[in-house]
Parts: sequence; structure tokens; C-alpha cells
Amino acid sequence: MSTQPSTQGVVPQRLAHVRQLMSREGIHALLVPSADPHLSEYLPGYWQGRQWLSGFHGSVGTLIVTADFAGVWADSRYWEQASKELKGSGIELVKLQPGQPGPLDWLAEQTPQGAVVAVDGAVMAVASARTLSAKLQERGARLRTDIDLLQEVWSDRPALPDQPVYQHLPPQATQSRVEKLGKLRETLKERGADWHFIATLDDIAWLFNLRGADVSFNPVFVSFALISQQQATLFVALSKVDDPLRGVLEADGVSLRDYSEVAAALRAVPEDATLQIDPARVTSGLLDNLLPGVKLLEGLNPTTLAKSRKSLADAEHIRQAMEQDGAALCEFFAWLESALGRERVTELTIDEHLTAARERRPGYVSLSFNTIAAFNANGAMPHYHATPEEHAVIEGDGLLLIDSGGQYLGGTTDITRMVPIGTPSAEQKRDCTRVLKGVIALSRAQFPRGILSPLLDAIARAPIWAEGVDYGHGTGHGVGYFLNVHEGPQVIAYQAAPAPQTAMQPGMITSIEPGTYRSGLWGVRIENLVLNREAGTSEFGEFLKFETLTLCPIDSRCLEPSLLTQDEREWLNAYHGDVRRRLSPLLEGAALEWLQARTAAI
Amino acid sequence: MSTQPSTQGVVPQRLAHVRQLMSREGIHALLVPSADPHLSEYLPGYWQGRQWLSGFHGSVGTLIVTADFAGVWADSRYWEQASKELKGSGIELVKLQPGQPGPLDWLAEQTPQGAVVAVDGAVMAVASARTLSAKLQERGARLRTDIDLLQEVWSDRPALPDQPVYQHLPPQATQSRVEKLGKLRETLKERGADWHFIATLDDIAWLFNLRGADVSFNPVFVSFALISQQQATLFVALSKVDDPLRGVLEADGVSLRDYSEVAAALRAVPEDATLQIDPARVTSGLLDNLLPGVKLLEGLNPTTLAKSRKSLADAEHIRQAMEQDGAALCEFFAWLESALGRERVTELTIDEHLTAARERRPGYVSLSFNTIAAFNANGAMPHYHATPEEHAVIEGDGLLLIDSGGQYLGGTTDITRMVPIGTPSAEQKRDCTRVLKGVIALSRAQFPRGILSPLLDAIARAPIWAEGVDYGHGTGHGVGYFLNVHEGPQVIAYQAAPAPQTAMQPGMITSIEPGTYRSGLWGVRIENLVLNREAGTSEFGEFLKFETLTLCPIDSRCLEPSLLTQDEREWLNAYHGDVRRRLSPLLEGAALEWLQARTAAI
Repeated sequence: MSTQPSTQGVVPQRLAHVRQLMSREGIHALLVPSADPHLSEYLPGYWQGRQWLSGFHGSVGTLIVTADFAGVWADSRYWEQASKELKGSGIELVKLQPGQPGPLDWLAEQTPQGAVVAVDGAVMAVASARTLSAKLQERGARLRTDIDLLQEVWSDRPALPDQPVYQHLPPQATQSRVEKLGKLRETLKERGADWHFIATLDDIAWLFNLRGADVSFNPVFVSFALISQQQATLFVALSKVDDPLRGVLEADGVSLRDYSEVAAALRAVPEDATLQIDPARVTSGLLDNLLPGVKLLEGLNPTTLAKSRKSLADAEHIRQAMEQDGAALCEFFAWLESALGRERVTELTIDEHLTAARERRPGYVSLSFNTIAAFNANGAMPHYHATPEEHAVIEGDGLLLIDSGGQYLGGTTDITRMVPIGTPSAEQKRDCTRVLKGVIALSRAQFPRGILSPLLDAIARAPIWAEGVDYGHGTGHGVGYFLNVHEGPQVIAYQAAPAPQTAMQPGMITSIEPGTYRSGLWGVRIENLVLNREAGTSEFGEFLKFETLTLCPIDSRCLEPSLLTQDEREWLNAYHGDVRRRLSPLLEGAALEWLQARTAAI
Repeated sequence: MSTQPSTQGVVPQRLAHVRQLMSREGIHALLVPSADPHLSEYLPGYWQGRQWLSGFHGSVGTLIVTADFAGVWADSRYWEQASKELKGSGIELVKLQPGQPGPLDWLAEQTPQGAVVAVDGAVMAVASARTLSAKLQERGARLRTDIDLLQEVWSDRPALPDQPVYQHLPPQATQSRVEKLGKLRETLKERGADWHFIATLDDIAWLFNLRGADVSFNPVFVSFALISQQQATLFVALSKVDDPLRGVLEADGVSLRDYSEVAAALRAVPEDATLQIDPARVTSGLLDNLLPGVKLLEGLNPTTLAKSRKSLADAEHIRQAMEQDGAALCEFFAWLESALGRERVTELTIDEHLTAARERRPGYVSLSFNTIAAFNANGAMPHYHATPEEHAVIEGDGLLLIDSGGQYLGGTTDITRMVPIGTPSAEQKRDCTRVLKGVIALSRAQFPRGILSPLLDAIARAPIWAEGVDYGHGTGHGVGYFLNVHEGPQVIAYQAAPAPQTAMQPGMITSIEPGTYRSGLWGVRIENLVLNREAGTSEFGEFLKFETLTLCPIDSRCLEPSLLTQDEREWLNAYHGDVRRRLSPLLEGAALEWLQARTAAI
């Protein structure tokens, strides 16, 4: 949670200016979501309009402005930050809670008959725009998506990012873009679509074996793609692609057009075409460009499923990346243990040392998300991030939670470990042990191929629920291959809808990360990444099992071994045996000694 | 699975007659579902038109007839029976499989433009009729629901059932009908409905504290109910209600009208009324009677949730009924063990002895479903039922599966136990042990109140999946209180949609019944009923846990104890301790000795 320089002074002025424009345009309510034309998790500054207008800098939140009300809807992760940042701005914090009405429901209830609600269609998913529009229509109100009110007010709007695009090359890229395009076209043909439009940046990066650095942590670049059986066009700022790369792409049948030309290209899709789109992943503003005769075929982008299913060759590279990442972690943990009590260690210096250890590893590209190093009470905030202004010094007794990950040419990592500081309390050990039981229960599960992934969540939670404890986040998210650390379509979370596309398939990589958060006291989370592997076929069908990919000791000094069953202890000892065997060759000196000590059998 | 007297000879004549009428009426396809105006599980003969017309006597299946095709869609439980019964009839068996298109999809694909599909609207749920109608409209075809083609053809159609209606009285009825009606009206008011129409027989029986015997096993009576803030009208054949009961009902504000008058009553609902209905539980034929101005408020019947939540007083009666039922089972099992090898025991004599043991128990009313006694290969068919023509003699080695239940004034029971015959094989013991592990895992689970019940299924299946085994049926169904042995809204099945109404609430009773079926060899299922009880509230919310209600030894001679963990053994020993303590006072002689032997600690 990073508290940005206060903008409280200017927010009322900005709101007043926006309200003038609303009045001029006859707009009753303005909706400003946290979104961009690619519906990405991380937004370039150009699309951080909600942050700019509200002064609330959390990454997820929705602003609604009317003549006499302004509110930000934010979930519990952001309540503390939002209430600080919104103070004095004239904007209310509306606490978003699971199962409670959200901002769209509020609009549907509060908008008077005949009134107009405006949202910039360029940043609202087709599916959401349809839902809101239908709700407003029921009340005799109307949704307008053809106007970007911010543009006129936002004088110092940041430029679009301009980082160069580069190739993801063999050996780590295990399938060529020509092959991927060929398979995509086959799938489109089977579905009866001639055309396909993609707005999601990781789908595009995966399909074309290209990477970029336009946003933090996700190695993607701002672009769109339009594919037909004959053509493949990539819409990207042309300055980002150098001539040799342009030549390579053209030789593979990929044309380049400027990012700004996508609307024109959509207007030129033939009137009789059938266009495959994912209504949750394309904005209504872009689709409004289509001729009325174009038929939409709606469903998950075929690339979303394809990229979730890593090949056997991908898996080999990921295992190597995991070894490098695990070795970096051992070096870091060895330093941490020697530094504690000898020098001043803070949540920030942990981030620095851990990042430096990763940077020394071959194939490393960047972090895969902002490192979370959270001591005691800070650990109780699942998305805490230390800042130069506010961070803890690691001293005394307790638990340190470290959640971090790296982007490597051969894979993306994401790991959480608990570190005992001084002497953890018996209750802290019980929490860690219970969370580990959840990790073990799900890690060794076997399950029918095709089961909807949300249905597996209860296996990880059962040992935690057994003590009357639960956690508000999901147990697992999909992870990309040198791509986004959060990707779909699978998700292990009982809060998620078990939609057909969440089915478990071989090759998917998912996190297993149960937790326990004791507000104001401490937080526990243990996280490994696992790979879906085939477990054989019987008269009862095909089964899958998990291979644990993450390689790093789980510190048994945080555990209460008597709470583990014999087979849980065996699981932990076998895991530590693997970790020691695979990481030892990459380590020496203090790091190797640390690995040996922390993988001793219990 | 009961094979009825063959009707193969007459089916072609009946089909020919129906096809004449179809041609006369310009009907392209006739749809005959297994359903009645109450959408019940068990149909009175009057509504067994699909059985009559097709000659297939399975309880679930859908018939479609066109000029040149006739087919019965049936799920895997019925394939063997259907292929026998349909032989030579000119009707094809279409094998219905999960995830595959069903009969409505077939109609949507095969019906030519402009054609008419007919179904008797009196037996098709509003929701299904809407779906089919929309699918047909997309093809330019049309659904007609205002004609019952069978009526003209079916000369020997059975009469409607005429069993007397009686009261469910205190002490077992723990809440008066006046109170129940009062609460229902409050809920309706909160939802904004003035009127409520109920077609489901168990909802009606529960609401009015009345019971009947119109169908097998479910103590309900054929009726409808129409409730407003001022009136409550029960539509029932007047001959079924004697004068004293009519007086009692009238004193409680319940008017009686003849069953046949329901259509007229629906036509008389005021034009400006808001009527609450459950579109999945009311037929389209009935609703067609409403004036066009009546506004529908659609959702689960409030009584469906209310009756699923048994009160503390109900739970006390259920515990007593479980003791009686458990005692009957002990008497039966003691007989069975002594009879084996001494007299000829068959699947049929088991049914007779078990039923007789239950009949001797106070409060017993009837069976709650057809007893399943299935030896070896017969056990591999989850819905097997022995008949005088086809049944097994219990001899040699193997496993006997007995799934049975009773209706008591104070509750409904449903239990499955495995009996070792001779020497069960090691593999049979492994299957039984694995299934028991599933029972134990879920029985001792604790979980957040309000969790959607299908999400709990993986807890029971995990130990079974771990060996590459799965089963095709759900793990658990709701159970009524001296009512239907299958009731909603909760269901523990990963195949079920986790809809909001499936949320777990205190007081619900659900079965836990995992299984393993080895086609042609043997089947295993172990089933207990469990009650949702409050498990306390923490900073993480409210939790629920299960109380196991069913009291009967789980025969450890079918188990391989080395496969059980220490705490699984402890669970089993604790359960057997409870069973012995609570059943001993109700038993003597051989039955008591059997109880003591079979509850010995392992």
C-alpha cells in the first residue's frame, strides 16, 4: 500500500471542473473505473484517471461523481489507505464488501428517470457496459459511453508508455508465432469465426512471442491485435518496433499498424464477417466502431486457454527458472539470518537485498510484482507494501512475511515464505502450521481432469476452517510463462464463479497460497506454484495431480510439528529433500549452509 | 431397477395413434417429459404418460416423437433397463451424458423452420418452457403448450390418487401452521409480493402441517396452495379431507377448494397483484391462467428454505427417530448375520426383514424410498432395485450394499451400510476404507456459514480422488422432516451449480454418501445424515459444523484399518462409542450382542 504525495488540495478543484463539464453535457453521473483499453491489472499513467481525479492512489477502486455526491468504492485491502487519501477531498469512501451492492448497483438505484450516466467507453468492458446499460434502462435512464470528460480537464495527463518491444526467443520460447497463429486460426475456424480481435496485452505478447516493458512487472506492451484467416495485424506505437524486428514479424505474416489506427481497422472489418471477441476483455468503446452487420461470436479468447497450458518444454524451462529463483532466495535468507541483530534490517532493506539476489541470477528480467516484506501487524494486510515513509524495522519477536517473485526468460515465479524473528509465539506457530496443512492438503491432491478449479478450494481451506479460521483472498491464481503473474482462466477460490472456462487442464500453473490474518497482530501466508500434470486414466476417467514447482525451504522454526500428522511431516521432509538436492549445485558458502540447515528433516 | 410387464406389443399402436393426432393438429414433434403438475420426484400413475406411451418404465426419462423418429433420453442409471424395454418398440434409446446435449437441445437443432413442437404445459416447468421456447424461436419454430395429446389416446389412464390427508401434529410438529403462514406472509411482504402460488407438494405439506399418501415414500398429497396476505387456499380433492380436519383448517384461516379449481383461482388473481412463484417449480400450463397484468416475482419458494432449516425442537425428534431407526437396523443386521449360511437369504428377503424391523418401531410410518439391497455386481448400479424376477442370492464372498430409510413422525432417515459376505477381497476392503475416509473427512469438516454447499464436495472426494477413483452421483442431498428424502435447496455435488440458494444454513440436514462403483464387480457406498450446527463466531465470521445424526455401526470387517490414519480411527471409534451408548437401551438379546460386537474399537 503506497501512499502517494498528497493531492488533497487539488482534488476539489478538479472535481469542480469536471462537474462544470457534466452540467454542460447534461450528465447526471460520471463513472470513472480503474481500467484501460486493455482491461489490464497494471495501468500506465495515461489511464490512471481515477487516481488523478480522486486523489486515491490504490490500484483498484471506482469513482462516481454527481452534482452533489462523489464516492470511491474500494475493497477492504484499501480502506485504510483510501480513508487517509480521501480526507478533505469531499469524496466519500464506500466500503465494498463481498455480496454487497457495488458501484454499478448504486448507479442503478440512484439514477433518476431520464438521467444520463457517462463513462469513457474506451475503458469499460463490453460485458460491464451491457449490464449497466440494462440496469439503467430499467429505470428509464441512459448510459453514454462516447465521451471522455477527463481529457478536457486533465492538462498534465502523462504520455503513453514508449518502451521498446523485443522478441521472446528460443530456447525459452518453445513454439513459434507462426505455429501459434496457425493453431489460433484453426480454433477460430472450428468456432465459425473469420476474424478475431484481441485487446488483452498478455494474450498478444504470448501469441506473437513478443515482450515489452510498458507497465511495471508484466513484460507486456500496449497494443491490439486483429487476426483473420489471411492477415494478422498488430497495432502498436511504431516507434517501439525497430526495423529488424519489423522485418522478422512481416516475414512471419504479421503486419504492423500504429496503435491509433485500431478504431479505423475495426470499422473496416467486413459487414458480413463473424468476429470472435471476449466481452469481458474488450471495451465497449472499441467495439462501437464495428459496422452493424458484423456478427459477434463471444467467448474466452482462444489464446487465454492456450497460454495457460504450458508445454512439456516450457515446464523444463520453468523448473530451471525455479532453481535459479530458489537459489536467489537461499542467498537472501542466508544474508537475512546473519544480518538480523547485527545490522539494521527493515522491510525496505529486505526488498533491496532480495531484488539484488534475483538480479544476479541468469535469465532474470525483472520482479514479477512489488515485493511484500511485512513484519508482524503489517503482515495482516495481505497487499501491504512498505514505503520510505512508512515501514517496519525487523526486531523483537514475531513473524516476517515475504511474498515476492521474478520474471525470468524461462518463467515467472511467485513465492511466499514466513521467517521467524526472535521467538515466535505458540499462537503464531499454530497459525503457520495450519496454513502449511492447507498447502500440503491441496499440493498432494489428485482430481478429475476438467474439474472447475474453484471447487478445489475447500481442500486447502478444510484444515484452516477446522479451527474457525478463514481468509478473504483466493487460494490460487494462474501464473504466466514469462508473462503476467496473475492470469486466467483457472482460479482456486470459493468466492469465484465456477464457470466452464475455469476447468483444470494439464500444463496450467497455479499458486497455492492459503493464509491467516490477525488484524493488528500478524499475518501468515505460505505460497508455492504448482503445475497440473497428468496422473493417469482409469475406468473413472482422467486424473490430474500437482507438481510443486517452487523450490525454497519452508522454515520449520515457525511450525508446531506436533500439529502435523505423520504424512504431513513426510510431505514436508520429501519436499525439503527435493529442494536440497536441486538447489545445492547452485549454491556455496553461507547460502549452501543455510539451505542444508533449513531443509533438515523434522 | 424394476422391469415391468412388457408393453412392447402395444407401444407401436400407441405411437401410431399419437402420430395421427400430431398430423391432425399440425404438430411436428411431441415432447413427453417425466413430470406432473407439481414437478415431483415420484409421479402418480395419472401422470406416467411417458411410461405408458414409450413402454420404458424408468422413473426419469424424456420421450420425443416425430413423424419418423421416436427416442427416449435416459441417463446411465437406466441404459440397461431402457434398452431391454424399448427393444422392438420402434423407439431409440438416446444415452444422456453429463455435458452432452439433452432432448431440448435436440429439439432446438432438429426442428425445421416454421414447425410446431408440442408439450403438455401442465407438466412442464415455466423455466424449461421458456428455455425451449426461446431455442425454438431462434430457429423460427414454435412451442405449443396448450394441448395434452395423450388424453385422447390414453383410454385406460389411471385415476388421480385419493388417499386421505391427515395432520402432522405436536409434539413432532413443532411449529403451528398459523405461525408458519404468518412468517411466510412476512417474507412475502419483505419481497414485495401480495400473492404466492405453490405447486410443490412438500412445500405445501410442510406449510400446513398436513401429510398424505398419494405417492410412494413421500408423505405428501396432490394439491396446490394460493396464499395472499388475507387468504390461504388449499386446492385438494375434497373427498380427501374429512369434516373435522376441514374445521381445524378453516379455524386456522385455511380455505379448501377442489383440486380442479386451481386454474380458475389463478385466473382470479387481481390484475395489479404481484405474485411470488418459483419458475423451476411451477408449470407453464398453470401460469398461463394468470391475467396479463399480474406481475411475477420469481425466486425460490420461501417455504423451501424455511423447511430445510430444522428447529432445535425438530432436531430433538430427529435424534429420537434416528435411535429407533438405528435399533431397527441392529435387529435386522443381527438377524442377517445369523441367517447367512443357515437359510436362503436373497436381496428380496433382506428388504422384507429390514422393513419388518422398521415397522416394529414407534413412530414409524413408511419407507422413505425403495430399499436397495445389492450384492456384488448389483451394487455397482447405484439405483439398483431387486425384483421377484431378477435378484441375487447372498452367498459366497463379497460385499452387500444396503441403502434404506424410513419415514417417522419425528423425521426421515436414509442410511447406507456395507456388509461383508464370506471374505471380502483386499481390493474390496480398500474401496470401503477409501469411501469411509471420504465420509470422515466431510463429517468432521467445519466451514463458513453461508458457503455454497456444492463447494464442500471436494472435501469428501479428495481421499477417493487420491487413488484415481470418482463416482458419478452427488455426495449429499438435503433430507426433509417426515417429508421427502430428497429436498433442497442445498446439495453437496460438484456437478451442481453453486447457486446462491445452495448456501449452508444452521438446521439443514444433508446426506454424506460417497461411493465407488466397479462395473460388473461390486459397489461401495457409506451414508450418514448430518445436521448443520453452529460452531461459533470468530473474527473470521460464523462457522458451521456437522452433527452426525445416523446411528448404526459401520462394519469394520469391510475395512483395511492400516489405511486409516490415527485420527480417522479415533473418529470411527468415537462414532461407534456414541452409537453403542445411544442404541443399547433400545435393544436386547442378539441385537444387543450384535451392536456390542460391531461397535468394538479398532
